[in-house]
Amino acid sequence: MWLSGSSDLITKLKNRGVSRVALQFPEGLKRQAADLASDLKAAGFGVIVSGDPCYGACDLALDTISEGQANVLVHFGHAPVDGRPEVIFEPWQVEFDVSVLEHALPLLRGRDIGLVTTVQHAHLVPTMESFLASHGFETRVAKGTPRTPLRGQVLGCSFAAAKATGAREILFVGTGVFHPTGIALATRARVIAFDPISGTAQEVSADSLLRRRSAVIGKAREARSVGIILSTKSGQKRRELAERLAGLAPGAVIVTLREVTPDQLLNLGFDCYVNTACPRIAYDDQVRFARPVLSPQEFEILCGVRAWEDYAIDEIV
Amino acid sequence: MWLSGSSDLITKLKNRGVSRVALQFPEGLKRQAADLASDLKAAGFGVIVSGDPCYGACDLALDTISEGQANVLVHFGHAPVDGRPEVIFEPWQVEFDVSVLEHALPLLRGRDIGLVTTVQHAHLVPTMESFLASHGFETRVAKGTPRTPLRGQVLGCSFAAAKATGAREILFVGTGVFHPTGIALATRARVIAFDPISGTAQEVSADSLLRRRSAVIGKAREARSVGIILSTKSGQKRRELAERLAGLAPGAVIVTLREVTPDQLLNLGFDCYVNTACPRIAYDDQVRFARPVLSPQEFEILCGVRAWEDYAIDEIV
Repeated sequence: MWLSGSSDLITKLKNRGVSRVALQFPEGLKRQAADLASDLKAAGFGVIVSGDPCYGACDLALDTISEGQANVLVHFGHAPVDGRPEVIFEPWQVEFDVSVLEHALPLLRGRDIGLVTTVQHAHLVPTMESFLASHGFETRVAKGTPRTPLRGQVLGCSFAAAKATGAREILFVGTGVFHPTGIALATRARVIAFDPISGTAQEVSADSLLRRRSAVIGKAREARSVGIILSTKSGQKRRELAERLAGLAPGAVIVTLREVTPDQLLNLGFDCYVNTACPRIAYDDQVRFARPVLSPQEFEILCGVRAWEDYAIDEIV
Repeated sequence: MWLSGSSDLITKLKNRGVSRVALQFPEGLKRQAADLASDLKAAGFGVIVSGDPCYGACDLALDTISEGQANVLVHFGHAPVDGRPEVIFEPWQVEFDVSVLEHALPLLRGRDIGLVTTVQHAHLVPTMESFLASHGFETRVAKGTPRTPLRGQVLGCSFAAAKATGAREILFVGTGVFHPTGIALATRARVIAFDPISGTAQEVSADSLLRRRSAVIGKAREARSVGIILSTKSGQKRRELAERLAGLAPGAVIVTLREVTPDQLLNLGFDCYVNTACPRIAYDDQVRFARPVLSPQEFEILCGVRAWEDYAIDEIV
């Protein structure tokens, strides 16, 4: 069953006076759906599960509400990226013993550091601050923003909590190198990435990403037809941006897509694409795509309206 | 370029006085998108391409209109399945020399036959009727219905044009055995399938499908959790049916899905599924799914509210 059991959720739903509930889970938690739905059904609720792929709170199954199938959507695993009174967010909290942070300390050069993390660990920020303070560090943590409402929280598409620290050295606590690489580009700070599950720390630089992206821009120079990808997901839909980019080249056309997959880009057959959906698609998935997929800023460089020196990582604000 | 060139479409759009156009293509025709969109853009239209997978007129990109990105949707490759004044349908006509039908004639037992075909060949129905008449056949062709508006047209989810002939022997002209198998089940008539491209004819029976489906129902008997798949596609959304089926078993929960893929069913982890989306998904794709995917009628059999003797093929009306 769900971490806190279904009884808390049932109480919450009863307090809201709702009778029909939609449930949405990210892929890794979808297996919870059958049991939780069954519990809610037994408790007298009308239940519907959103089965489509889901990778973030930027992709809310709002059609379940707009079509009257549910009064409320319970979205698991993520914090909100925009205000939605009809959605209950149930983030997924992953615990760890903050004393593992000691493995990151030798890599820090100064005593004045910015601290950021991802939604799963955001509840541990105060404990991490205490730990760092007890080891002589002055830790700066930014307050939440509309897209990253938790203190110190960053997303793969929003590094505002890193920039707002103003720190010249930033400690990122979470898995993978995508977030810290983005933070390095967005802040120009020195970035230490610490994985609290494996207990390993490393300094992360954006150099390798920049080299790869420069090569992708080069490959796109020959493109005659350009598909400007416009997401249909609630929190990834950047229509004004897509329209502005489509105005930069005669062969550029807006293409709406729900899931940006190698198959769909191949079927559509454009010579190159510009991604205004989830920014990670261009940066992380290029190896899976047969054609260059540029970020908005990279397309501006290609079209000569931005200098390479002004390269910036794509964020959704 | 598109079969008839872009100039006909441009004239049609100008006559309608529209300025913003959305284009939607089935997978096999998506490669037309870049050139056609470029032509329309050069002619002064605002253009947007729907890039999501599309397999029929049951899946219209109506969000392009409801969100104000386009005044009209041009949907290529299919005839309408429901009335939509905001959509221009441009079916894809595939020609063949009707004299190839002579290869089908030896398999026909009587002189009184029903004639049905798919959207690509529906424009050839009058020529086929003349050919058959000149060879001594009395041909019955049903008029269109709301879901299959062309004379003699069948879909994989609607065999109304076959049933309406009342014929005891039916000639299906088109590719594959799915349509003729469905016709055999829906009409109990003798069905000859003729592929006009390969020029081959065969008698089709539903026996093998029934054996396979009986085995799938058997596998589903152990299922504790049941996902009732409810499509979010415009012409596949059978909400009342899904709700009725969810009421047949305590462990049954409605799951909304846009694309019903093996990955999504695996991630969701239900013991078995009932498919109220495109009927072909259950019949054609079972081999790709790790769990039983039943048709609505098969689930009724499993739940004891329908007898095996009343097995019926699933159609969308």
